[in-house]
Amino acid sequence: MINAQARAVFNQEGPFNLTTIERRELQPHDVLIEIKYAGICHSDIHSARGEWGPVQYPFVPGHEIAGIVAEVGPEVTKYAVGDRVGVGCMVDSCRECANCHKGEEQYCLHGMTGTYGSVDRYGQYTQGGYSTHIVVTEDFVVRIPDGLELDAAAPLLCAGITTYSPLRHWGAAPGNKIAVVGLGGLGHMAVKLAHAMGAEVTVLSQSLKKKEDGLKLGADHYYATSDPETFKELAASFDLIVNTVSAEIDINAYLSLLAVDGTLVNVGAPSEPLPVHVFSLIPHRRSFAGSSIGGIRETQEMLDFCAEHHIAPEIEVIAANQIDEAWARVLASDVRYRFVIDISTMGQE
Amino acid sequence: MINAQARAVFNQEGPFNLTTIERRELQPHDVLIEIKYAGICHSDIHSARGEWGPVQYPFVPGHEIAGIVAEVGPEVTKYAVGDRVGVGCMVDSCRECANCHKGEEQYCLHGMTGTYGSVDRYGQYTQGGYSTHIVVTEDFVVRIPDGLELDAAAPLLCAGITTYSPLRHWGAAPGNKIAVVGLGGLGHMAVKLAHAMGAEVTVLSQSLKKKEDGLKLGADHYYATSDPETFKELAASFDLIVNTVSAEIDINAYLSLLAVDGTLVNVGAPSEPLPVHVFSLIPHRRSFAGSSIGGIRETQEMLDFCAEHHIAPEIEVIAANQIDEAWARVLASDVRYRFVIDISTMGQE
Repeated sequence: MINAQARAVFNQEGPFNLTTIERRELQPHDVLIEIKYAGICHSDIHSARGEWGPVQYPFVPGHEIAGIVAEVGPEVTKYAVGDRVGVGCMVDSCRECANCHKGEEQYCLHGMTGTYGSVDRYGQYTQGGYSTHIVVTEDFVVRIPDGLELDAAAPLLCAGITTYSPLRHWGAAPGNKIAVVGLGGLGHMAVKLAHAMGAEVTVLSQSLKKKEDGLKLGADHYYATSDPETFKELAASFDLIVNTVSAEIDINAYLSLLAVDGTLVNVGAPSEPLPVHVFSLIPHRRSFAGSSIGGIRETQEMLDFCAEHHIAPEIEVIAANQIDEAWARVLASDVRYRFVIDISTMGQE
Repeated sequence: MINAQARAVFNQEGPFNLTTIERRELQPHDVLIEIKYAGICHSDIHSARGEWGPVQYPFVPGHEIAGIVAEVGPEVTKYAVGDRVGVGCMVDSCRECANCHKGEEQYCLHGMTGTYGSVDRYGQYTQGGYSTHIVVTEDFVVRIPDGLELDAAAPLLCAGITTYSPLRHWGAAPGNKIAVVGLGGLGHMAVKLAHAMGAEVTVLSQSLKKKEDGLKLGADHYYATSDPETFKELAASFDLIVNTVSAEIDINAYLSLLAVDGTLVNVGAPSEPLPVHVFSLIPHRRSFAGSSIGGIRETQEMLDFCAEHHIAPEIEVIAANQIDEAWARVLASDVRYRFVIDISTMGQE
């Protein structure tokens, strides 16, 4: 076993404490990654607190991982020591089902193996990236292009791919009108990516507080959803709405903003069901959809796209002993737009 | 004005009584149709009873109309006296918006003009097909091919196009697995059409009562949704589910039957919102959609498709004085599978 230092919560309430966890010995196709940066995702909080199902403690979150290859197994062909690499929300899948064969491992018919909170094929409980090291099979490791800084690359592994994939799937392109609901970690990436894909981008945010930011990030328009006029003015106008908000929204009001054949895709996952009125869908052949991260191939494509278009998330780098504080600020929506843990500070008091 | 005999309800409770209504004088592009048959659609009942919004009485329902051209306006070019023609759920639209230009008049941005219960461009309240005559502009009239009997053609104008359009839009074809929820007027057409398009068709019905019928209509498989095993056995297996049921169903259970990138499309419209759990959509990038009839061009295509594939609805022809009884049977789901009124009986006591 390989020992790694990590920050873990020991129960649902937290707080984080420094601990030592075990990573498996390198298997033939495994890569040992020295983690440099780990992003903080809202999902980390939901998961650690058992809000998405029971978890095992101590629990180490983190699925936005950027680092350097420290060692490789004897049969690894894709990576060499010193390579800049990333790991996202999954570290394995069955690799045999139709979806895995299509490169959509996130939809693995046998269930993908989550980077944390899953049991892997060796029977080990997976622990995430708030840690100094991680061992991952090479097929679930992606390369971070030279044009991307490691700290800013980390959030791309979840916030980036989670928004890139639906934008690609539903065809963000010049001539398209796309709305992004919520300007948080995912939302601000959706704006940057959709803008780079050439679409006309509108931010729908509760207030106009972040309007200046939104326009700077690449939005063409910015509306406050607290203003009922917004829903009148924008009625039936969008080809795609990417909803990044996990809180419950008035789903039928947002669906009314879709043009014919438009889709509202949720990448945020509210815990309560949303009351969808079928009359919100029928008159314009609208769709309400969901999307989960992206496949490994698509994640690599997204990183390359970001490097090529000089896209990176807006981040605030913190030390490992500031995670509790950062989580409180995430819950208060007080972050512009992603916290990233500097893993070199792991051992600090 | 042109007088027509009709069967109308005079208040929300009914019953039907014989009356005389006025149709407009023929405008240059108008066609006067002598109605031979009119199908009975569940929507007729919802509308007449004010369940989908207030209506004006006396109210003449009927939007599955088959008849013969009796007279044409001076500038009509598409039809001649004696032609076999049909009229469906709409009799006009703005004809100028992007959707009308695309031939999707049912999604007219200014609202299509319904065959009944709408106000047309002349300011007249539209009255439906439970009537001896109707005047419709030639662009909203379709031709009934020789291969189709007039009585059986009538229900194609709503039940046929309502199921044909989503099957085409979401690509029913060989290699696709399609489920049809509910084996009523719409459901039995969906089965016939999807089968003719080459898809593998499964009927999901509450019980196995109509199994023999379903298989005869073209279904490959037939399952009872009252059996919880059905949902286990068919999990994540369909590319498309066409839900023809207007009653509330356990939407998340049905969504769980969709494969990756699958769509559940509602053509039935329950009056209450359906509680959609986003976790039903995200893990397989599923969509929940709605679809409304089809455009005029597509309606003609559907009629030609039915003639070519010898597809017709299963009907029970009734006399005009049996409408009340037929409606009661529709509400009790006691019809296999569509009532059609023989308009030649209009004057009978």
